[in-house]
Amino acid sequence: MAEFKLDPAWEKDIAEKQEFVNLWLERLLPPEDSVPVELHEAMRYSVMAGGKRFRPLLALYAYELSGKDPVSAVRPACALEYIHTYSLIHDDLPCMDDDDLRRGRPTVHKKFNEAIAVLAGDALHAYAFELLASSGNSRLVSEVAKAIGTYGMLGGQICDILAENREIDIEELRHIHSHKTGALIRVSLRVGAILAELGENDLELISNYGAKIGLAFQIVDDILDEISDTETLGKTAGKDKESGKATYPRTVGLEKSREMAEQLILSAKDDLSRMSMPADVFHIFADLIISRQY
Amino acid sequence: MAEFKLDPAWEKDIAEKQEFVNLWLERLLPPEDSVPVELHEAMRYSVMAGGKRFRPLLALYAYELSGKDPVSAVRPACALEYIHTYSLIHDDLPCMDDDDLRRGRPTVHKKFNEAIAVLAGDALHAYAFELLASSGNSRLVSEVAKAIGTYGMLGGQICDILAENREIDIEELRHIHSHKTGALIRVSLRVGAILAELGENDLELISNYGAKIGLAFQIVDDILDEISDTETLGKTAGKDKESGKATYPRTVGLEKSREMAEQLILSAKDDLSRMSMPADVFHIFADLIISRQY
Repeated sequence: MAEFKLDPAWEKDIAEKQEFVNLWLERLLPPEDSVPVELHEAMRYSVMAGGKRFRPLLALYAYELSGKDPVSAVRPACALEYIHTYSLIHDDLPCMDDDDLRRGRPTVHKKFNEAIAVLAGDALHAYAFELLASSGNSRLVSEVAKAIGTYGMLGGQICDILAENREIDIEELRHIHSHKTGALIRVSLRVGAILAELGENDLELISNYGAKIGLAFQIVDDILDEISDTETLGKTAGKDKESGKATYPRTVGLEKSREMAEQLILSAKDDLSRMSMPADVFHIFADLIISRQY
Repeated sequence: MAEFKLDPAWEKDIAEKQEFVNLWLERLLPPEDSVPVELHEAMRYSVMAGGKRFRPLLALYAYELSGKDPVSAVRPACALEYIHTYSLIHDDLPCMDDDDLRRGRPTVHKKFNEAIAVLAGDALHAYAFELLASSGNSRLVSEVAKAIGTYGMLGGQICDILAENREIDIEELRHIHSHKTGALIRVSLRVGAILAELGENDLELISNYGAKIGLAFQIVDDILDEISDTETLGKTAGKDKESGKATYPRTVGLEKSREMAEQLILSAKDDLSRMSMPADVFHIFADLIISRQY
């Protein structure tokens, strides 16, 4: 992967934003001691397990392109992380990817049980829409619902499962990845940009950027699963190979996968450069994606 | 149960409305031949298996109290049925109620598989919010999200599961039922009434009516599970007893359960009578609930 040294000022800015998101993610969840306690515990356990908070950060930074205070966008931004978490909980279930480990800890169905895992995922899903609706902007709801539905994230998940133990070509793999991961990343940027009332041209450019870094993100994920170890990843490494899951390295090889990710990042940066305002932080995100080690 | 003879004119009106709902439920679902085919098939299989379409009917009739054409409310109304179906699919999963039969046919995880059942439920859940948002009214989204979240339907489902094989009292049972079934029925009426722009007083009265008939509906469900047979119900009868699930008949006896349901229906009708407009069809629904045989 390309070497990349993050500017300390940006490193601080991003870390502070992550802290801000973590604070709100925690604050917005139903209290752990309110009934149904088991469900609220499981929601909190899964959401507060850590993570890069990539989707809320994208939404908040997109919102800030307008120069507005990010606190006004924090509920919809957190909704995106709750949706991401719901999709991970369901994805980890025995009938799906059957994973025991997530972010270095037992997955929800291991820590609690399968029924609680199904319902905690459902609860985060519903709650996300409550938060999106709290913006008073029904376009957010409709864009996110589409992005995570059968023509978006869920479509990618099912195709991914059905493609197991079967040869697929690069086009099908691209379809899976761009839907399974790309759709939610793309719409995260759109949520911020729509709330910020960006013009249609800028909205289009940042959406394209989002689709490209989303796909690159998943390709890098595949590469890391292939070359990294369980301890570094915090989830079971080599899992894709073991489960017969189609990945970029398995389909086109490691070197070609790296090239494709780098190409996507370049093209994403080109979209940024054509926006009507500077978008420095998104250049940095693009660099971070291509250079990440875990 | 009380004897009740449905007026033929109303019988026709309700049957036509059910037909109208069925037509739209079918029309609004993604086409079966569009990718991901397996997921779209499972969605259609579960939604089009029949059913009384009770929740969309409540929404549409509430909307019609304003004298407006029901077609303007049909998308949000169908969303309520999609949510109901999603909850049934997840409820039937092996890790939940583990049911093989629903409306006389194999449940989704039996007909397809568990992964598809989880994802088809998730897909109907997301799609419902897309349809609710299509009204442009974010209040609908936020009310429904709350009603089906941990303080509503999902809260009832988890308490129901956790109460299995344990003695619970009538208050806890009331809590479970009013959340598990009552919350979605109540909000179905609210969706129609909010779209119809009913005044706050009428909205309150129809909401109370909804909460009461919702609870009565579930009590009657419990009674039927106890006294009816599998063929008549189209789902496995006696299931509650077998699974050690708490029900009204098991907690307070059959006779007392009937009395409580009848009391709720009377009180619900009293709410109706205090509304500022006639609400004949809702009196009929109340009678139908208390007299239903399946």
